[in-house]
Amino acid sequence: MKRYIKANEWSIIEDEFHATQLRASESIFSLGNGRFGQRGFFEETYSSDSLQGSYVAGVSFQDRTKVGWWKNGYPHYFSRIPNAPNWSGIYVRLIDEEVDLAVWDLKQFTRSLDMKTGISYREFEVTSPKGHKLKIHVEHINSMDNQNICAIKYSVTSINYEGKISLVPYLNSDVAHESANFNDKMWDTLRAETNHEYAYIWVQTKKRDTQICCAMTYHFYKNSKEVTTSPIKIEKEKLTGFSVGADVKPDERVTLIKYVAIVSSLYCDKYNIVEETIHQSKNAKKLGWTSLIEAHSLKWDEIWNASDVVIEGDLEAQQGIRYNIFQLNQSYRGDDPRLNIGPKGFTGEKYGGNTQWNTELCCVPFFLLSTSDDTAKNLLLYRYNQLPKAIDNAKKLGFKDGAALYPMVTFYGEECHNEWEITFEEIHRNNIIVYAIMQYITMTGDERFLADYGLEMMIAICRFWSQRISFSTPKQKYVILGVTGPNEYENNVDNNWYTNYSCIETLKSTINAIDEVSNKFPDVYKKISDKTQFNYQETELWRKMIKEIYLPEDDKLNIFVQHDGYLDKELKTVDDIPKEERPINQHWSWDRILRSCYIKQSDVLLGIYLFYPNFEFEKIKSNFNFYESRTLHESSLSPYIHSILAARIGDVNKAYRLFLHATRLDLDDYNNELQTGLHITSMPGSWLAIVQGFAGMQIIENNLCFNPIIPNEWKSYSFKLNYRKRNLRINIKKNEVQIELFEGKDLNIRVYKSVYSVSKSKILSIQI
Amino acid sequence: MKRYIKANEWSIIEDEFHATQLRASESIFSLGNGRFGQRGFFEETYSSDSLQGSYVAGVSFQDRTKVGWWKNGYPHYFSRIPNAPNWSGIYVRLIDEEVDLAVWDLKQFTRSLDMKTGISYREFEVTSPKGHKLKIHVEHINSMDNQNICAIKYSVTSINYEGKISLVPYLNSDVAHESANFNDKMWDTLRAETNHEYAYIWVQTKKRDTQICCAMTYHFYKNSKEVTTSPIKIEKEKLTGFSVGADVKPDERVTLIKYVAIVSSLYCDKYNIVEETIHQSKNAKKLGWTSLIEAHSLKWDEIWNASDVVIEGDLEAQQGIRYNIFQLNQSYRGDDPRLNIGPKGFTGEKYGGNTQWNTELCCVPFFLLSTSDDTAKNLLLYRYNQLPKAIDNAKKLGFKDGAALYPMVTFYGEECHNEWEITFEEIHRNNIIVYAIMQYITMTGDERFLADYGLEMMIAICRFWSQRISFSTPKQKYVILGVTGPNEYENNVDNNWYTNYSCIETLKSTINAIDEVSNKFPDVYKKISDKTQFNYQETELWRKMIKEIYLPEDDKLNIFVQHDGYLDKELKTVDDIPKEERPINQHWSWDRILRSCYIKQSDVLLGIYLFYPNFEFEKIKSNFNFYESRTLHESSLSPYIHSILAARIGDVNKAYRLFLHATRLDLDDYNNELQTGLHITSMPGSWLAIVQGFAGMQIIENNLCFNPIIPNEWKSYSFKLNYRKRNLRINIKKNEVQIELFEGKDLNIRVYKSVYSVSKSKILSIQI
Repeated sequence: MKRYIKANEWSIIEDEFHATQLRASESIFSLGNGRFGQRGFFEETYSSDSLQGSYVAGVSFQDRTKVGWWKNGYPHYFSRIPNAPNWSGIYVRLIDEEVDLAVWDLKQFTRSLDMKTGISYREFEVTSPKGHKLKIHVEHINSMDNQNICAIKYSVTSINYEGKISLVPYLNSDVAHESANFNDKMWDTLRAETNHEYAYIWVQTKKRDTQICCAMTYHFYKNSKEVTTSPIKIEKEKLTGFSVGADVKPDERVTLIKYVAIVSSLYCDKYNIVEETIHQSKNAKKLGWTSLIEAHSLKWDEIWNASDVVIEGDLEAQQGIRYNIFQLNQSYRGDDPRLNIGPKGFTGEKYGGNTQWNTELCCVPFFLLSTSDDTAKNLLLYRYNQLPKAIDNAKKLGFKDGAALYPMVTFYGEECHNEWEITFEEIHRNNIIVYAIMQYITMTGDERFLADYGLEMMIAICRFWSQRISFSTPKQKYVILGVTGPNEYENNVDNNWYTNYSCIETLKSTINAIDEVSNKFPDVYKKISDKTQFNYQETELWRKMIKEIYLPEDDKLNIFVQHDGYLDKELKTVDDIPKEERPINQHWSWDRILRSCYIKQSDVLLGIYLFYPNFEFEKIKSNFNFYESRTLHESSLSPYIHSILAARIGDVNKAYRLFLHATRLDLDDYNNELQTGLHITSMPGSWLAIVQGFAGMQIIENNLCFNPIIPNEWKSYSFKLNYRKRNLRINIKKNEVQIELFEGKDLNIRVYKSVYSVSKSKILSIQI
Repeated sequence: MKRYIKANEWSIIEDEFHATQLRASESIFSLGNGRFGQRGFFEETYSSDSLQGSYVAGVSFQDRTKVGWWKNGYPHYFSRIPNAPNWSGIYVRLIDEEVDLAVWDLKQFTRSLDMKTGISYREFEVTSPKGHKLKIHVEHINSMDNQNICAIKYSVTSINYEGKISLVPYLNSDVAHESANFNDKMWDTLRAETNHEYAYIWVQTKKRDTQICCAMTYHFYKNSKEVTTSPIKIEKEKLTGFSVGADVKPDERVTLIKYVAIVSSLYCDKYNIVEETIHQSKNAKKLGWTSLIEAHSLKWDEIWNASDVVIEGDLEAQQGIRYNIFQLNQSYRGDDPRLNIGPKGFTGEKYGGNTQWNTELCCVPFFLLSTSDDTAKNLLLYRYNQLPKAIDNAKKLGFKDGAALYPMVTFYGEECHNEWEITFEEIHRNNIIVYAIMQYITMTGDERFLADYGLEMMIAICRFWSQRISFSTPKQKYVILGVTGPNEYENNVDNNWYTNYSCIETLKSTINAIDEVSNKFPDVYKKISDKTQFNYQETELWRKMIKEIYLPEDDKLNIFVQHDGYLDKELKTVDDIPKEERPINQHWSWDRILRSCYIKQSDVLLGIYLFYPNFEFEKIKSNFNFYESRTLHESSLSPYIHSILAARIGDVNKAYRLFLHATRLDLDDYNNELQTGLHITSMPGSWLAIVQGFAGMQIIENNLCFNPIIPNEWKSYSFKLNYRKRNLRINIKKNEVQIELFEGKDLNIRVYKSVYSVSKSKILSIQI
């Protein structure tokens, strides 16, 4: 854990230059707008270590996977996120020098990210090797209003320099790919052109499936006056741009505003893409900086109005939760069911893939509760649209009759990951999709969705399980052999409790859904049955499995056992590991990790969290105590779940500590991996820790319930909540719970053990 | 299984051209001499599918391994066998046509490999698209006498052609690597030169660690008369050679003898390598074809004299066993402890590595018994010399105090394989090294070896186990968690019976060895203790482990259980798999294979084979019946072991069927993979199946014992055997066993239940 970001309610501030932390800061200061994004790398040249990544939504590179250890059923490709052409670069040149923070002397460096308005600021003074001093100020937005536009305002003021300052905005497609093997390139540059008015660069992935075009225009000012002389045009094979300059004296300033449009073939016909991109960039210039900023900030106002969380009395928690909401909204806007949320969003190339089960586990519940938009629905439609490919995926592994196995990592529906122990075995991922569907139905009441989309996915998933589950003669039970549970520090285990238990729930939910749909929408049910050749008889085996699936337990310890044989390990606790050896995935060999009892992330406890009402309190407590003490939280999907459980069993201190871990995972770099990007898809976890943990929100028997507690460190916390067409604000203080209904019909809400009716006319106040 | 090779006592004959079988035939007709070798690809151009591989001993390419799924402890490189420059190519050109068997009409194609003399022959008639008919005859040796020399005699006789025939011998370093990812090249060509007398090509691996030089000279004849006119020189960046020709009329013949020297930097200083190689090729030319052939065949005589097996009454078995002995001797000569035996020898690139545990399991026992040379000793010294790297390898995984883990795949001692489930987990490989050491001591009586080399390895291996074995509280036993047993169709299992059992034997043997060495060679013992910081106290834990290691058993089935949970699987048998789905590794997904009960290769039964005297007959039988019916033999290391066990439990028919499988695995392509190369390192298995299986040879309580049976199909079989400085011939007929002592002192031998004294003066004959 490192802390060098200043705590602040609305801003992320770095008030010193940390060269060794540069990649980490680049991650922190990432900017995005749901369509594209980039790490916070410097616009001007930086000649030392840096990860200059720019990424465009829905663009992936399918690398070949047929290496030595390729086996039948392996995917043909694995996905990498290609680094898009650099659209934000600006060279800053004096007569014979160029600004380079890796070489020039640097003073009073500060940068900040204003989360309220979505503007990134940077300011510093530099002295060149020849002694020329400049002051530089940069503002940068990726517009949330016009999602094709990135705009950068770059000002250079002379302190002691007399002569020409040239600002050179450029577009460069000759970029490095962090994840590339053998330094191979992923782009072919189709065309690169500069004229007096605009420049553009047009690229296509080497696989020829996707194109991006970037076009730019600019404004140039000396002091406050626009300069309109012709620029020097730059037009190379993979680099286009302009050099524009003016002579300055000390205290004079030149300012460039770079307007870039970025358009991918996902959103524009390939035949029009160049024209369209140029048009967009010209249009941005016409609107000008001030209008762009205003429209952009207005969008952020709307987001904060809907989903801000206010925590009084704890600046770090306040900053952390806002940072998570901010970054998640930068990564995904929920308006296009072809898109999903990458684990690193637009902040790095690690994991090379887009969609993982993080989406359903962590993002869907957040969007369901925090916005009335169709965001969660679009995420589920993404899966529905990919169902045929999930069926193909299962077929490749030998399953038949329309069984579906959703991929572990995917862009367009095909499996894009090639470790057998994950790809073939971490199959519990199928169940979280069913869970997310059920959550969607519960939270929205939209039963039509179940009929139109949900049930078909659920039947296909249950068909997978009915073939994947086998019968053990010695146990006289159904077993699930050879799986990897959520705890990826164990591979190829038998009877992972979480997998087995979530299968029971999946099968049960599906049988219920079949009954529901066949009763309420018999026509749709018939259509589904015809389409999928579904026969109600199939549920007989499912029912048998529900009753007889083996669930490993240990009576003495009063716990569910993570998997067969887990207790044969040396059962140490996390406290037994020397501090300097953590995170163990950076210090221990994979061999040692696998053999240890240590748990990467919530596994048994994940099941208890997801299906909480099914378990007895004492059992929950003993499981929590046993497993939390062995859990390393080396996955971002873990601390928020344990925080919620700690809150529910009343351990407010532990809940708070785990909440901080979840909330400031990236800002404080808990796992020493910030340099590779942010943990975008687990960011909603901190919001869930507040709502489902501290506020104790649950749906029990179709009732919205709260069981609030408040950490000692806080004076109060409040958040908004959407539930079945109601919009509520919950405000929890040390001795009062306030509930306000903004929209929707009256509603019964249980708080602790009592049920209250809430209506728009009056804020409900409960003394505690 | 396919059979298109004609059965013959001493030859491998293909009397028809099979274009679709070309890669398979190239494997079958591979040639080698222990220093280099090549697949049986055509010398002339062949423009269709073919795997043109030439390989040089001890030359490996270390490819980077740091791909997406790289984890701590993974090796930095994995090994590939680079395809060496093609040294055997000869273009055959008419005025404006070139011989190409993929295009020209072909008649009376026949090729044969004379195993007695080690000469490969090829003969055929071709008709060009223009109607020109030629008859071609080729002879090829890789000299067993001068191991730097390959010589090829290439004759072309005109049938109806009048005009110039040019023969163009060349060397080409622009070769393809079958195993290369992204078509990358492995060689830099340092120099390529041709003068009027010789041509050469000098290459270095891109990693710059190894060099090869190939140089050639030639003789050219028209009819029987040497032609000495100047050739046309060919000198390109990566190709050198000559074009030599003569005008012919029908029935006239041109003949080229190509003398190539191949020298690697393993055997020659890099500064002299070019000069030395040229010298060698000139020298070969000076000796001439006839002398080279004579010296080469003489070496084969010696080999056959020492290790031929004669089987009367079964041509296919006879051909098979000779083929195995022939190919093994082509791959490895036993004279250089820096070399080992690659799974494919010089016949293919698959497995990309050199040394695997096959060597100790299958090759060491064969060489120990079949030759009085130091071959087995050199193979063990190879491991001894690599002990420091085995210790490093264990250290990388977190083991300390001089613990050693020998690599799964290696060239120079480093682990070169990067699947965690193998690299980190298939650790039983450590034990087979101890087994091989003990076999060496038993068979040779060379106790000094134990003191000088063996014990140090054994201590390091036991130190590994003492850290790797852990204690299970629920079982109150020592357990070995997270391993892959010999059956690689199971990964990451707990308590693989074979691994656990072989650990007990390893620990026991080591404690005995410590006692032996400290008694008989106290000085050496002190030196070892000082060097390794060995403390006798360490054996206390070992003794505890010997007593309390958990060995899974099932009383009802009266079997040892392959590993924890194995019996939870659906226990089908091999007969339940449709024929067209075998081998399953070519038809089933890896996922399905892992979850099935099917066994790739001998696992529990391997343990029973290795430590046979330790088990009761009934137990052996029930294990054999249970596991053999579930074993697929999709590894070449399997059928010979089951054949031996079947013979020992008296099932001669099954033993014979499995022997044929082992013996003709490649000739009849049992596993449909012949195209990738031969199974060199398991070829000795067929010899062991005869000696240890049918002849029932065992060492029991330091006595050489036989318990012969004879397959119905055979009239007799005989083989030679080396044992403690004796050289014996055993001849087994339907009703007689003959034992003849050629060399060494008198010896007591048990045959069935009686003990006989054997002396040089008289052949022992026992009626049965």
